[in-house]
Amino acid sequence: MSTTIDVPETSKVTKGKAVVVGPTRPGGWKKGIAIMDFILRLGAIAAALGAAATMGTSDQTLPFFTQFFQFEASYDSFTTFQFFVITMALVGGYLVLSLPFSVVAIVRPHAVGPRLFLIILDTVFLTLATASAASAASIVYLAHNGDQDTNWLAICNQFGDFCAQTSSAVVSSFGAVVAFVLLIVMSALAIGKP
Amino acid sequence: MSTTIDVPETSKVTKGKAVVVGPTRPGGWKKGIAIMDFILRLGAIAAALGAAATMGTSDQTLPFFTQFFQFEASYDSFTTFQFFVITMALVGGYLVLSLPFSVVAIVRPHAVGPRLFLIILDTVFLTLATASAASAASIVYLAHNGDQDTNWLAICNQFGDFCAQTSSAVVSSFGAVVAFVLLIVMSALAIGKP
Repeated sequence: MSTTIDVPETSKVTKGKAVVVGPTRPGGWKKGIAIMDFILRLGAIAAALGAAATMGTSDQTLPFFTQFFQFEASYDSFTTFQFFVITMALVGGYLVLSLPFSVVAIVRPHAVGPRLFLIILDTVFLTLATASAASAASIVYLAHNGDQDTNWLAICNQFGDFCAQTSSAVVSSFGAVVAFVLLIVMSALAIGKP
Repeated sequence: MSTTIDVPETSKVTKGKAVVVGPTRPGGWKKGIAIMDFILRLGAIAAALGAAATMGTSDQTLPFFTQFFQFEASYDSFTTFQFFVITMALVGGYLVLSLPFSVVAIVRPHAVGPRLFLIILDTVFLTLATASAASAASIVYLAHNGDQDTNWLAICNQFGDFCAQTSSAVVSSFGAVVAFVLLIVMSALAIGKP
């Protein structure tokens, strides 16, 4: 990364330098960031859709039942997990739709428009992805540990497979969250530095 | 907002125009955005610290008990609520420390450095704030509605005050989340547009 160059109104020298440097390294590190952006988006798509699919297929029925309970756990036992599946699918869909804009940023590394568009939408979907990942994580934590004061019992002793599947979905979704943070930071650097 | 101006290497005309426009409106809308940034940060500080304090003081003991249970609910009954108090205090602290940088952006509206610094840290703390707000929200939802399949009973019938207090803390924390999203979008616009 080069140093920060502030552009006050009068410094024609700095501006001139930027113009001169540009053509010698067409694109330069901005193109590299755009390519990393594209690859990160592919990874985030896999993480988000994988999380949605893993959570959506989580279902475990125990091989015994009583008169009052049939022991079955699936993702739609919890409203939070339903929310998780829907938002992760939404996030995956957004990421797929954002790929063309990422390609535009690769082709025209110095264009600010596409990056600005992406950074704003990325921020919104980062919030959505984080919210669903964190809320599902807190439910998974409860399922593992229970809560003594409210007498909520841990269910993971019985529903081991269900817990393992939902836990891995949560981990995968946090992968998408990390990707979003990196995407936003990279876009901000590409926009901000001359 | 003006229209997007792409700056390819050759368009000296556009660059010249930007230089001419600058001095006639010193600062201009960027200064306005910086001032709004400062005000939003003050609001977000109030929201984050208010949420931490509200959650941290939530405590309700019912006026009866049995041999086995003393009916008391406080924020440290739930690991998630402890996490909530800690992260909201952290977010509030970060926001206080970020105020000087916001002031620098007001004084020098065209400087990119402070805004870039703020947008990156804002993204990190947006993720932190969203995670704690959403995880606390999912616990509050469980406390209100319970969960039939896992036999977790709703506790809000008994602990009405506790539930009201934690709910308002969650609402307040989502106020901070919205403020962060706006801060990031505004910073991105201020960096990206000439």
